[in-house]
Amino acid sequence: MSCSHRLRLELEMKYRPFFMLLTALLASLVQAESSNSEEPRAVILLIGDGLGPQQLTMARNYLTGSAGQLLVDTAPVYASIQIETEAADGTPLYVPDSANTGTAMASGVVTNINHVGVRPDGTPVTSIIEAASRAGYRTGIITTAAVTDATPATFLAHISHDDCENPAVILGGTVYGRHFPGCPEEATENGGPGSTAEQIAKSPVDLLLGGGRVHFLPTIAGSNQRVRDAASENGFLVVDRLGQLDALTPGQRALGLLAKENLKVRMRGSGSRKAEPVTLTDPSNPNAPVILPPPMSCEPNPEFGDTPTLRQMTATALRLLSAENPKGFFLMVESASIDKQSHQRNPCGAIGEVQQLEEALAEALKFTESHPRTLILVTADHSHGVQIVPEPSAYGGGAAEGVHSPGKIARLKTPEGGLMRLNYGVNNYAVTEHTGANVALFGNAEAKGLVTPYMRQREIHTVMMRYLSLAPQPTSSNTHE
Amino acid sequence: MSCSHRLRLELEMKYRPFFMLLTALLASLVQAESSNSEEPRAVILLIGDGLGPQQLTMARNYLTGSAGQLLVDTAPVYASIQIETEAADGTPLYVPDSANTGTAMASGVVTNINHVGVRPDGTPVTSIIEAASRAGYRTGIITTAAVTDATPATFLAHISHDDCENPAVILGGTVYGRHFPGCPEEATENGGPGSTAEQIAKSPVDLLLGGGRVHFLPTIAGSNQRVRDAASENGFLVVDRLGQLDALTPGQRALGLLAKENLKVRMRGSGSRKAEPVTLTDPSNPNAPVILPPPMSCEPNPEFGDTPTLRQMTATALRLLSAENPKGFFLMVESASIDKQSHQRNPCGAIGEVQQLEEALAEALKFTESHPRTLILVTADHSHGVQIVPEPSAYGGGAAEGVHSPGKIARLKTPEGGLMRLNYGVNNYAVTEHTGANVALFGNAEAKGLVTPYMRQREIHTVMMRYLSLAPQPTSSNTHE
Repeated sequence: MSCSHRLRLELEMKYRPFFMLLTALLASLVQAESSNSEEPRAVILLIGDGLGPQQLTMARNYLTGSAGQLLVDTAPVYASIQIETEAADGTPLYVPDSANTGTAMASGVVTNINHVGVRPDGTPVTSIIEAASRAGYRTGIITTAAVTDATPATFLAHISHDDCENPAVILGGTVYGRHFPGCPEEATENGGPGSTAEQIAKSPVDLLLGGGRVHFLPTIAGSNQRVRDAASENGFLVVDRLGQLDALTPGQRALGLLAKENLKVRMRGSGSRKAEPVTLTDPSNPNAPVILPPPMSCEPNPEFGDTPTLRQMTATALRLLSAENPKGFFLMVESASIDKQSHQRNPCGAIGEVQQLEEALAEALKFTESHPRTLILVTADHSHGVQIVPEPSAYGGGAAEGVHSPGKIARLKTPEGGLMRLNYGVNNYAVTEHTGANVALFGNAEAKGLVTPYMRQREIHTVMMRYLSLAPQPTSSNTHE
Repeated sequence: MSCSHRLRLELEMKYRPFFMLLTALLASLVQAESSNSEEPRAVILLIGDGLGPQQLTMARNYLTGSAGQLLVDTAPVYASIQIETEAADGTPLYVPDSANTGTAMASGVVTNINHVGVRPDGTPVTSIIEAASRAGYRTGIITTAAVTDATPATFLAHISHDDCENPAVILGGTVYGRHFPGCPEEATENGGPGSTAEQIAKSPVDLLLGGGRVHFLPTIAGSNQRVRDAASENGFLVVDRLGQLDALTPGQRALGLLAKENLKVRMRGSGSRKAEPVTLTDPSNPNAPVILPPPMSCEPNPEFGDTPTLRQMTATALRLLSAENPKGFFLMVESASIDKQSHQRNPCGAIGEVQQLEEALAEALKFTESHPRTLILVTADHSHGVQIVPEPSAYGGGAAEGVHSPGKIARLKTPEGGLMRLNYGVNNYAVTEHTGANVALFGNAEAKGLVTPYMRQREIHTVMMRYLSLAPQPTSSNTHE
């Protein structure tokens, strides 16, 4: 219910004598508003991949101090987003991945783990990029991951597994050191729609910036054409550096492959330190003292070099998408490595990428000063396994009496002089896992009346579509309606 | 900023021609509103102890299904609450306990771990119960813990350690199986204010319901009087059963000690099961398969018996506090064992106590139908160590290849047919620990204009005091201003 609508209801009940006059007044205001409907409209959706509640508090404690406020904290609209996922047999799952959560936001449907832009049965669903493009809006995607990574892919492609990123791997192979069966039925040579990269090359998106150059080098089956060349043939100016877009003609479509794989991250632990296990002084005695990893700091990542920042990419996109554009646009901006660094149990890496998201938000807010009909939403796709735990342990003698995390921990020195202990205790594997908590949604004033305090993730799709006057794909879930 | 205020600002910018007329109209409405100021006002603060984001999502998944909504999710006002705590040396801490977070809400100040109603230096601060009582409001506290437990204590007492609950333990002794030095300087015999129970016996609160009978049995130093008798002497009708309050005269003060210690909880794991470790098939090989604990269900706790529910206690309190009361009241309602059951790694126990909080909220909302000038806030004091993790693990062969939590897990069958895996991986100790994530604040429509989307926990105090037209204690923190 909109703010003005709620207010009207309240006023009607309490102040009936004044109500007739107010109604007449509001009616005239609504009329005034609709006369402005020719102004261009834009939606900017910023996604912090894996930016769950613990991760957000961790970043705030580090970046602003525990009594400080991030830029997202100043948003006038705030909501709790419940995540939904389901197993292949239709039973609910309680922890999602980036593929099904991206599909929920892009297309409004609940689907399976790894599914990109398809329903549980494999049927493609229409993404907001496809719908907006068809309606004459410009569209853009920015990510610090490969442009073929799960989150951007859900807005651009339709495939049963997010790892089927290029024409080689779609046939199967080794992914993350393990055998991967691929998605052979969906390969071009088998009459399918092709890998994510091939689908991107044919997609209607106007501007796509991120990493993943490597996925555009393989050739398309039955041709000698690299995916990259197919993209050029389909109207994309394909570039490798952000600066190459400086002189782009407004309306010219572009694909910026700005890194071989993911873009490098901004921050790292000093000396490349991540979370580490405690040292047991006597493994045979569970109450024997343990030695905690020493405190650590964050430092700039020397590998970052001239990597474009998320802010720079956002500024470029906003300029190109809005120039000489009377209709408006949809732009998704992803800070992808919050998730990837958390999987690596690297708190400094994740915090730096939250900072990048904040800077991109600052750029988006600056844009709204000259383009007020712009809906900004900031959210996360899912939560992550990091926890802020007591430093020292709340129990007894703590490390001196053997009380310790069974996982890995980082004891991070914060700029305000605190010591923040971070626990990565979800699993004993090389990379840690997602968790199932609700995530936050922040909105600018344009979100008032569209965003309610509690929403299901698929309803974010509905909100964005309505703002652009596009008919939302009916939200759906096999199990949950 | 209130809904009407925000609306006014927006309208002013967009529709200046209409603004003068609207201003005149709103001014007349404000005048109409202030003429109602003699109506009684009430604040009901519901606290889910330890009800952090993961815990809330866990309860929702179980109680309503993952596409469902809890009653709190229907609240029209929603905010993110940042928690602040500090160490004795003034440096920030990132994980609080119930004593300092309770003090923040009761009195608006940031203080140290274990501190109850005192600043870091031990100076007492005025709680909303004390201020409201002085101004002529009735006041009440309901908890499923001992009434001397940290959270209720912060509204009623001023002492440097929340474990100094009675005249015996204040001198030190064994608490939770460990030596506890007590708070001897604060003991009555040393000229101090006495233990929490002694301070409660002298407190101005009108109605106090919970457990903790055992803390009122010791005698007060220098007298033969039990604390319980001191409470009677100070005007409390002291009862052991809720039904004994049925015929209470309105305005009669009462202390209901409804259990020896904490009230029993409603739910438990089937066969008393809690989270359990995985079984290693070959401890010498980290990649050897592991055997996961089998799935479990929740069941009614047979020990619950005729324990009064939080809803029953809330109904009693609302009846007694509002009867023949033209001024209004302040009531704090705590579902305490969400935290206590989570410390025990008992998800079913915690979920049942979230259900109790929901029922108390339903009772509070029912009350507002006949008492519209009632501010309802629902929040948590801090987050907790439980996590919802993938079932099965997202990685490789999972248990078959040895991927497992290094902590304890519960695999909980949900009524909607899912299997929710809960991870307790914070420490290896008998009880697990709190975590540092922001918590949620939910408000009814009366909270509009008072609650902003991001607040520091101490600002909850300010909101409640303002609603009751009481001068808030200036919010303060040694380190964070």
